[in-house]
Amino acid sequence: MIYLDNAATSWPKPEVVYQAVDECLRAGGNPSRGVNQSALNMSRVIFEARSSVAELFNVKNEEQIVFTKNITESLNLVLKSLLVAGDHVLISPVEHNSVVRPLQYLKETKDVEYDIIPGDQTGYFDTSEIEKMITKNTKLIVISHSSNVLGTILPVEEISQLAKKHNLYILVDAAQTAGVLPIDFEKLDIDFLAFTGHKGLLGPQGTGGLIVKEGISLTPLIHGGTGSKSKETSQLGLFPDDFESGTMNTPGIAGLKEGVRYCIENLEQIRKHEQFLIDKLLNYFKENSQFEFYGPQDANNRTGLVTFNIKDVDSDMVGEVLDNEFQIAVRTGLHCSPLAHNSGNTIDLGGVRVSVGPFTQEQEIDELINALEEISQNM
Amino acid sequence: MIYLDNAATSWPKPEVVYQAVDECLRAGGNPSRGVNQSALNMSRVIFEARSSVAELFNVKNEEQIVFTKNITESLNLVLKSLLVAGDHVLISPVEHNSVVRPLQYLKETKDVEYDIIPGDQTGYFDTSEIEKMITKNTKLIVISHSSNVLGTILPVEEISQLAKKHNLYILVDAAQTAGVLPIDFEKLDIDFLAFTGHKGLLGPQGTGGLIVKEGISLTPLIHGGTGSKSKETSQLGLFPDDFESGTMNTPGIAGLKEGVRYCIENLEQIRKHEQFLIDKLLNYFKENSQFEFYGPQDANNRTGLVTFNIKDVDSDMVGEVLDNEFQIAVRTGLHCSPLAHNSGNTIDLGGVRVSVGPFTQEQEIDELINALEEISQNM
Repeated sequence: MIYLDNAATSWPKPEVVYQAVDECLRAGGNPSRGVNQSALNMSRVIFEARSSVAELFNVKNEEQIVFTKNITESLNLVLKSLLVAGDHVLISPVEHNSVVRPLQYLKETKDVEYDIIPGDQTGYFDTSEIEKMITKNTKLIVISHSSNVLGTILPVEEISQLAKKHNLYILVDAAQTAGVLPIDFEKLDIDFLAFTGHKGLLGPQGTGGLIVKEGISLTPLIHGGTGSKSKETSQLGLFPDDFESGTMNTPGIAGLKEGVRYCIENLEQIRKHEQFLIDKLLNYFKENSQFEFYGPQDANNRTGLVTFNIKDVDSDMVGEVLDNEFQIAVRTGLHCSPLAHNSGNTIDLGGVRVSVGPFTQEQEIDELINALEEISQNM
Repeated sequence: MIYLDNAATSWPKPEVVYQAVDECLRAGGNPSRGVNQSALNMSRVIFEARSSVAELFNVKNEEQIVFTKNITESLNLVLKSLLVAGDHVLISPVEHNSVVRPLQYLKETKDVEYDIIPGDQTGYFDTSEIEKMITKNTKLIVISHSSNVLGTILPVEEISQLAKKHNLYILVDAAQTAGVLPIDFEKLDIDFLAFTGHKGLLGPQGTGGLIVKEGISLTPLIHGGTGSKSKETSQLGLFPDDFESGTMNTPGIAGLKEGVRYCIENLEQIRKHEQFLIDKLLNYFKENSQFEFYGPQDANNRTGLVTFNIKDVDSDMVGEVLDNEFQIAVRTGLHCSPLAHNSGNTIDLGGVRVSVGPFTQEQEIDELINALEEISQNM
């Protein structure tokens, strides 16, 4: 099988990731629960993973890093904790349903308002657009670092500066960029950075996190036992304990740590490699007018994915043929991101998304191109 | 190492659990995300796990089973979705912080009231106590099927009938009983059954779930992409999709399935084996007056754990000596359950908890007894 669905979940993972999960699971023990040796070993797993995430994203105080089950939990934690009745939120034109659905829920039940910053067909927008939309109730800007449909990289640094200027919080969704683009939490001066473990960070599914700027307090989504100060019937206002109630996904986090370490060591090469592959695919699409692709023209301005269609052919059908006849796995449909498809004018057609990873071979892109050549001639 | 902390997290797991996690992780793919072969394979993993859980607990409609990251999430989901201002809740005298802390939060922020049903030192109470405490605002009874400190098995069937009689919801926390005692969801006629994956069910950490009686609607704790009906900016009121937003812990759930299947096949033997070991330990404590143990006298009335103290010796110190000098892992302190320690009058002293699993050997209990003999003579 040729696997080109790394934007959904990366595969394969580095061998050390598989090994770390297996070793952790076989070792046993429950982190922060008691002082026996196996419990302490598991606490160490969590500690080392947190340190590695801090290193990758340059986070000064690693206690500000909270592990979650996925980035959807991370985003919900910020939105549901921070926003109260009357608050107004601005979101980029390419936000995922993991941002839109919680906001829609808050709108319908808690009188929170949100507006979508208008962008062009690539999802790009001029930051001056934001200034026009800020009202006296605006509290937060939510930005996908990169769209999971269009691949467009949004100018987080510029938007963060603008947020600071207007005393707004900024929440960055790094689902598609963590482990692929350099992200400096301190330098970007962002308030909330949400990440997932199983995509660019090359960890297992069931892992993710949220980094919160020091001094911001949040209410947990989930209250419960933290293994610390058990006598108290309330949470204690502590990072990260308060936001990690219940037993954590220790084997998953053990794997995530190894994925993150791989990224720390190879970030530059990963980015170069993915750009090279995407550039090759974009060039093919540019030279063959039966293909329409979405997002920026230049691979420099995008992450490792391209969404495209063959003329007006249904994207699901193309995906099915690629899968059944060529054993090439891609993702078709709307990718949980109707907003980005609105930007790209593909809300009805959907799109075929090809997404590469650090282990995708050039030859696999060549085989994809050959398959597409054949499919497009027969449709 | 002799591992006697199975009530925190079970270890070892059956070999098939480790293998299933590893195979799933190495196979790749993202469930419910697209139609390519690897995504479909992962959807099958989730489907089979759900069917296995349905089989173990006799759940008619398996779509009513929601997977969560841990039982704390499951309990929060019920409490935060079901309860509104003015509601009153009754909880057993042995509830864990995963019940008490969300309720305390709801009390402080949403005007939800709760009362603790008074029990004796074993955590046991007469169900007639409940009837005296029901007010016109009472909506829910929360019952730990068995205390994680005292081991006491509470009469869920009787309490459930009483709840029905008074039109109250009942939420059963099966953290310590799933995979150990038979639980028939349909026959018990309970509204919410919360379970964790990494204890008696012998699955990996990072897994858990909630079973909801058909016809009850809940609001998700976490809104987001479900891989279904992506065009909608709201959740769709569907079980289980609505409550599983974002990418799931697929490798964890693959392992959980194998753990659950092991329990289905071995439930009766597991229970007999654990009772035998606990009985042996209880007999030792009964014959040696320097030990005080908590909870029921008879192993028939308890799950596979015993919490004890040596005279007035600090429990942490006993745990440390067991760990350092005898390589025996137990759990000391309060076990995130101050309520149960209030019942047992051990809130200041804490307790040393010994908890067995299906793979604990009789000889390991003998070695524990020898170690305790030595420790108690030197203190």
